[in-house]
Amino acid sequence: MKLAGSMAEARAMAQGRVGLVPTMGFFHEGHLSLMERSASECDRTMVTLYVNPLQFEDPADLARYPVDHERDLELAAAAGVDVMVIPDPAEMFLEAPLTGVSVAGIGDRLEGAYRPGHMDGVATAVTKLFAGLQPDRAYFGRKDAQQLAMVSRLVHDLGFPTEVVGCPLVREADGLALSSRNVLLGAYREEARALSRGLLEAARLFEDGERSAAAVEGAVRNALPPGALDYAEACTAAAMEPVDRLEGEVVLAAAARFGAVRIIDNVRFTVDGRGAAADRGVWLDRPSVLYDADPAGADPAGGR
Amino acid sequence: MKLAGSMAEARAMAQGRVGLVPTMGFFHEGHLSLMERSASECDRTMVTLYVNPLQFEDPADLARYPVDHERDLELAAAAGVDVMVIPDPAEMFLEAPLTGVSVAGIGDRLEGAYRPGHMDGVATAVTKLFAGLQPDRAYFGRKDAQQLAMVSRLVHDLGFPTEVVGCPLVREADGLALSSRNVLLGAYREEARALSRGLLEAARLFEDGERSAAAVEGAVRNALPPGALDYAEACTAAAMEPVDRLEGEVVLAAAARFGAVRIIDNVRFTVDGRGAAADRGVWLDRPSVLYDADPAGADPAGGR
Repeated sequence: MKLAGSMAEARAMAQGRVGLVPTMGFFHEGHLSLMERSASECDRTMVTLYVNPLQFEDPADLARYPVDHERDLELAAAAGVDVMVIPDPAEMFLEAPLTGVSVAGIGDRLEGAYRPGHMDGVATAVTKLFAGLQPDRAYFGRKDAQQLAMVSRLVHDLGFPTEVVGCPLVREADGLALSSRNVLLGAYREEARALSRGLLEAARLFEDGERSAAAVEGAVRNALPPGALDYAEACTAAAMEPVDRLEGEVVLAAAARFGAVRIIDNVRFTVDGRGAAADRGVWLDRPSVLYDADPAGADPAGGR
Repeated sequence: MKLAGSMAEARAMAQGRVGLVPTMGFFHEGHLSLMERSASECDRTMVTLYVNPLQFEDPADLARYPVDHERDLELAAAAGVDVMVIPDPAEMFLEAPLTGVSVAGIGDRLEGAYRPGHMDGVATAVTKLFAGLQPDRAYFGRKDAQQLAMVSRLVHDLGFPTEVVGCPLVREADGLALSSRNVLLGAYREEARALSRGLLEAARLFEDGERSAAAVEGAVRNALPPGALDYAEACTAAAMEPVDRLEGEVVLAAAARFGAVRIIDNVRFTVDGRGAAADRGVWLDRPSVLYDADPAGADPAGGR
């Protein structure tokens, strides 16, 4: 695995079909599954590691975002990554850019509404990575369902010659969706399971024939302690528009707060001519590599 | 010269250093000078011909924008263009995109203020052309000074590996800045000369030692018939921020309306350690090729 400190260096290492996995580091099995998928499909797999300040509307959240580059490099090499790109912040957004990219509708709702500027910050950073690295494919997890929908639309609208590949959400053995932020949950770890519990209950209702959006949203709401839920909303998977009935491809997306940590999760429902299916993601059968880490940048107090 | 009907086709024709000249067609010597410059500096010169609906805030202006593809192809081939890209509207903005690109500050003022949505429409289209064609260099005329400043900043902020090259403004023999819209001026042709006359008078004042922005702006205002001027404003060339004194690199940018046609023009002042210089652009010594054209899409009534 080679290291690149700039987009130009990384471009010079490109060869054949280039797969890109954009990350903010502190890798877990979700990230690693994207890297392995890219390594199996592409000639060169590039991973960018950049904690994008534009997508943090809360400076405290940015300050405690966990960091462990040494461990990340080892995990990425083992996952088959060819080029690890850690751009100089001066090349990225050390100064706030004047140029902004936003995706109307998809970027405004849910995370966009609860985290002002967040989705635009993602769109701007992804555009910059695509512009600079010119990947043939880019891999995103379905855990960030709204991000995946937004990036897919952005690539269509702006005509990047990049195929966006959505990959399965990965859950810890107890159901909690994998997130680098899980290491910050501390004493709230057990309480935070309520979010996945609610979504998995919603998936059970769906498989029992429930097709009302309000009913499955209610299952999530009921599973959570008072005040914890930001939203639980059934939306079209492509446009993230709210639906009343579970038809076509629908994401039931939810976000909740436990202590100072905010987590998101979703389940995906497909109803088409061939029948109905719920996608809950995949489960780990052992503790995540997250818990081997030394979160140098993590402030565990944030989770208490 | 080859024709490409899509970005993918054009990309497949790229080789070595690629120079891009984005245009809306109906070529004049300004366009041709960009193509010739690219042909002299790059291995492959690509010209895109696309009348971008996103940058027309006025449907009537879009409807009468002159079109003559046959003539454009002949002129481009003679200028050394390798690939003429006429994208299928369905690949561009037949449907309005949800994704928008905007450059705060530079894109909001002057043209951005007088033509709501115009500058964002330019930014979004240029981003799409750069994303799809991945040029090494892109050539823009200094006639659209604000566009040049905005695109330069956009490329910096979004990290496109593209060098933006600003090229001289070209004037007709009587001083009028070349624009495809000049063929629409009709009976207003003589009156429209007032805009360049005012700017050239401002350049004379500058060369006589005048350094007050208000004074050179006043020279433009005084040259124009009542009500014709939209703005005459001295701005920094890089950020298009208004200045009081002519120092560093300054653009005196102006826009005016004659009949149904709106034209823009500018002169550029440089004051640095080596002295002071006014850049008025270059002059044609014969009638423009514009007037050989058959403006099939042009509605000359718009100019009366």
